[in-house]
Amino acid sequence: MASYNAPLREINFVLNDVLKVGRLSESIPAFADATPEVFAEMIETAAKFCEKELFPLSAPGDAQGCKRHPDGSVTLPDGFKEAFQKYAANGYVGLPNTSEYGGLGLPYTMAKVVEEMACSANVGFALFPGLTTGCFEAILANGNDAQKNTYLPRLGAGEWAGTMCLTEPQAGTDLGAVKTKAIPQPDGSFKLEGSKIFITSGEHDCTPNIVHFVLARVEGAPGGVKGLSTFVVPKLLINADGSLGARNPVTCAAIEHKMGIHGSCTCVMNFDGAAGTMIGKPGEGIMNMFVMMNLARILVGVQGLGQCELATQNAIRYALDRKQGKAFNGNATIADHPDVRRMLLTMKAVTEGARVLAYETGMYVDLAHHHPDEAVREEANDWVELNTPLVKGYCTDMAVELGSMAIQVYGGHGFIREHGVEQILRDSKILCLYEGTNGIQAMDLVRRKLFLNEGRAVARFFALVQKAAADAGSEFTFIAEPLKKALVDLEFATRWIHETFKAKPEEASFGCCDYLRAFSLVYLGYNWLRMAQAASLSDDASFKAAKLTTARFFASKLLTQVTPLCETVKSGSGDFMSLPATQLAA
Amino acid sequence: MASYNAPLREINFVLNDVLKVGRLSESIPAFADATPEVFAEMIETAAKFCEKELFPLSAPGDAQGCKRHPDGSVTLPDGFKEAFQKYAANGYVGLPNTSEYGGLGLPYTMAKVVEEMACSANVGFALFPGLTTGCFEAILANGNDAQKNTYLPRLGAGEWAGTMCLTEPQAGTDLGAVKTKAIPQPDGSFKLEGSKIFITSGEHDCTPNIVHFVLARVEGAPGGVKGLSTFVVPKLLINADGSLGARNPVTCAAIEHKMGIHGSCTCVMNFDGAAGTMIGKPGEGIMNMFVMMNLARILVGVQGLGQCELATQNAIRYALDRKQGKAFNGNATIADHPDVRRMLLTMKAVTEGARVLAYETGMYVDLAHHHPDEAVREEANDWVELNTPLVKGYCTDMAVELGSMAIQVYGGHGFIREHGVEQILRDSKILCLYEGTNGIQAMDLVRRKLFLNEGRAVARFFALVQKAAADAGSEFTFIAEPLKKALVDLEFATRWIHETFKAKPEEASFGCCDYLRAFSLVYLGYNWLRMAQAASLSDDASFKAAKLTTARFFASKLLTQVTPLCETVKSGSGDFMSLPATQLAA
Repeated sequence: MASYNAPLREINFVLNDVLKVGRLSESIPAFADATPEVFAEMIETAAKFCEKELFPLSAPGDAQGCKRHPDGSVTLPDGFKEAFQKYAANGYVGLPNTSEYGGLGLPYTMAKVVEEMACSANVGFALFPGLTTGCFEAILANGNDAQKNTYLPRLGAGEWAGTMCLTEPQAGTDLGAVKTKAIPQPDGSFKLEGSKIFITSGEHDCTPNIVHFVLARVEGAPGGVKGLSTFVVPKLLINADGSLGARNPVTCAAIEHKMGIHGSCTCVMNFDGAAGTMIGKPGEGIMNMFVMMNLARILVGVQGLGQCELATQNAIRYALDRKQGKAFNGNATIADHPDVRRMLLTMKAVTEGARVLAYETGMYVDLAHHHPDEAVREEANDWVELNTPLVKGYCTDMAVELGSMAIQVYGGHGFIREHGVEQILRDSKILCLYEGTNGIQAMDLVRRKLFLNEGRAVARFFALVQKAAADAGSEFTFIAEPLKKALVDLEFATRWIHETFKAKPEEASFGCCDYLRAFSLVYLGYNWLRMAQAASLSDDASFKAAKLTTARFFASKLLTQVTPLCETVKSGSGDFMSLPATQLAA
Repeated sequence: MASYNAPLREINFVLNDVLKVGRLSESIPAFADATPEVFAEMIETAAKFCEKELFPLSAPGDAQGCKRHPDGSVTLPDGFKEAFQKYAANGYVGLPNTSEYGGLGLPYTMAKVVEEMACSANVGFALFPGLTTGCFEAILANGNDAQKNTYLPRLGAGEWAGTMCLTEPQAGTDLGAVKTKAIPQPDGSFKLEGSKIFITSGEHDCTPNIVHFVLARVEGAPGGVKGLSTFVVPKLLINADGSLGARNPVTCAAIEHKMGIHGSCTCVMNFDGAAGTMIGKPGEGIMNMFVMMNLARILVGVQGLGQCELATQNAIRYALDRKQGKAFNGNATIADHPDVRRMLLTMKAVTEGARVLAYETGMYVDLAHHHPDEAVREEANDWVELNTPLVKGYCTDMAVELGSMAIQVYGGHGFIREHGVEQILRDSKILCLYEGTNGIQAMDLVRRKLFLNEGRAVARFFALVQKAAADAGSEFTFIAEPLKKALVDLEFATRWIHETFKAKPEEASFGCCDYLRAFSLVYLGYNWLRMAQAASLSDDASFKAAKLTTARFFASKLLTQVTPLCETVKSGSGDFMSLPATQLAA
């Protein structure tokens, strides 16, 4: 059986010693009470909840799955409903959301920490509150007062759950192809008609109402993305006094049978004249959706981080317990076999480095939204823009890679369901696909984020890493030097993309995934430098030794991948795009 | 739904134009009739069988799985029994086995081609005859005449099925820890007592008898591998007249619930005084087992190849059909999006290059076993030794990677079971684990194969690739030049391992998996050079263009990974092994 112990020591180290999370309470009046002590306390409580309430439901939920009944109702695995109610009662759904509408009004950063733990413990479950938070954010950003007052207090408290209804069979990445129609009604509301697929938590019995945030096209609006608007469509209509009214004709036609996240119901939702109101202005649907989508991408990255942690800690525990043969150093547990040690250190180096990336991005969200100084907000917003594809793309790619590696550490036992690690690989693969595939993340980085504000964000990142490496001190040259080299190569590759993209976009974007990987590794190099520096001050010799060894491993084995990745990026598309696609088939 | 079309064009190209399979019938008298025409005909028949009989059972078999009944009997998914009987009737179980014992006596190479197709079509099913072949080989190599006469005709004809019973809970990689006891009986036979796990096809109702090849320790024999012997233990005892007798007490205690290959039953087998006879000499169990294990490793590599092909052809078909947005070149199918094109070319380059590696290894097995010239046999045997860990390790790692990539090409749809590609990833992961994990393959390469016969095999490989690159001709410098560079780096890394291993085995073997990857990529570079040369003579312009484009892609994007991999190998273990293992845990 797999197990989960929230890595509190590690989480607190990153928050306090590396990222100085106290900056939030010090600089943002709204967060004055969210001191590091409050963080630590909140996280400890959430850790217990994730370990004791969510994790025990994960393997059974995977085995049981969700069920759609003949009347179109859907039930989640046993215990999920009660767990959601407890999760909501603890305030985790509305944790970062404004207290005006029932949220706790705590930092987004804290929410990311709680979500990491929830996603380690039970990622299928965690999607459920995650979508509710996303729906809250979308209505908060562009809803009118009536919409906010109707929906936000209930969503923020987790009294109702939310969804995002975007995808249709012909419209995945290409949302411009959305066909769902919104027919204007005399009272200014709309009736929605169409079918949506891949709707997480589209139907269930955990909350008395479900709030759908829907992308659709007002009848007569132009084709493509410019004709799209967003709507809020409740499962049950809401009477003027706030009580629940008649059933709206939005129904679950089917649920998908998936590779993993069996605890999450993925629904085909039919809108058969369902009543809704428009959120924001007509034709601004994609823009409105991206408010939520950008935050959702960070959340998906955090899901990846959670799965990386789960894979890593289970692989280490197993390797410390499993005896097979004798290693060269005379020890019997497989953690002392060189190739197993390599895997364990890779897992640690990736997971711990990715945690800094994810939490730091969370802090930038807080600064961007709440810092009193506009310049700070603007800079933080640049960081959020730049980091989002890295967090989403890198952390989720790594979840799959580390999930596979955990199985490898377990050997044949890893393939057996009762050991629990094969579920990590099955659950993680979806993270590379939804909220924009990782190829889309890489294109977002190459096509948009590099060019944003004349490349200001990227230039700032390069300068920051350069300075950190230059100032590192002789004790840390083991990582500062390879970091400098990697940075130079990344800067060259970046310049090449900049110069190439306009005239030859195929050439420039052919290696976009390698570029995202290289960029992420440089970011992690910067993280490992900071972690090494912070750990060197620790008086826990064992913690310090593990951190510094892992930092050296990262510097020697992973950061060195940046140079060849950048070479591949710059070698472009050659003549690979000129072969007619049909000739690819044998 | 996934589909499968046997890649006959590609298979015949590799056999005839690249590997000149006619050499077998020309140089080996026993194979005089196995001309290229006979190959082509046999393969075409097998292709139809795999497409029409095996593939349609794959997804249903995955959904249904195997079932153990309260009486200990086990049933396979619907249709598997009949498919096995047809497979056996076609002669595929005993295809390469000596006609003296009911095999067809055809080249092992041909068996590998048939197995590739069977493993694309239904890898869960294909394990079943695969183990029977393995059992045949083990008895053929070390059995006495009575054992051969009793078992081989039935196994070769697929009338009975076979297993290998090696693993125990405490003895996976470390077979020296095997505890199953063999108690000598007055008549020279043995009674076996113990429990084996992970026994593929340990129990089923497809054949009237099952033949277990068992690794066990004669009571009183020394501990460790030196005390192990091998035994043959039938499910039903065999009377003197050859008819089936009483049930032997070897029973299935449980079947495993696994990530994939649900069509294959993985059994816990209890031996409760089951009667058997010793195969070969006492204490030579590990040696006897390796006769079969080495061939089984090649088979597992071929399973990986089959899954690579399945992933590749489905991803290409989907990408040619799926329209999303508009690519830079104005086309609408996703195969024209640069990142998707990159994935498709990666899949083609790996699969087609791996096929040459696998088939060539098959040809070396034929030459090693049957060529009249002892020098040729000896050289071919060197090749088999060297190639085995490459075929097993590389092809199976790639099956997982390409399985994951196929899902990525499908986007969210790839995660849905009905599309059929997520099964590839689930089915493939076991290939990296059984018959020696891929870490064990890499250690076999680094620790044994490099040093075998004073490094003769490796030196021969280097000389061959060097000559091929030097003689390539100016038309092929696009791959000959990067191949030369990669070869130099591989040679340096090899020399470093040679020089380092004895004094510092941890240092030398820390990067064993990267070394195996680098070695395989150089081998594939050599394959792609030969394929480019052969394809350039083709008068099919479309085939030629696709081959040369894919060769250029391999040279530019994959072969270039050798240099950094070799750098990583040579950077050794640093101080990563000196951290006490327990400090890895947070």
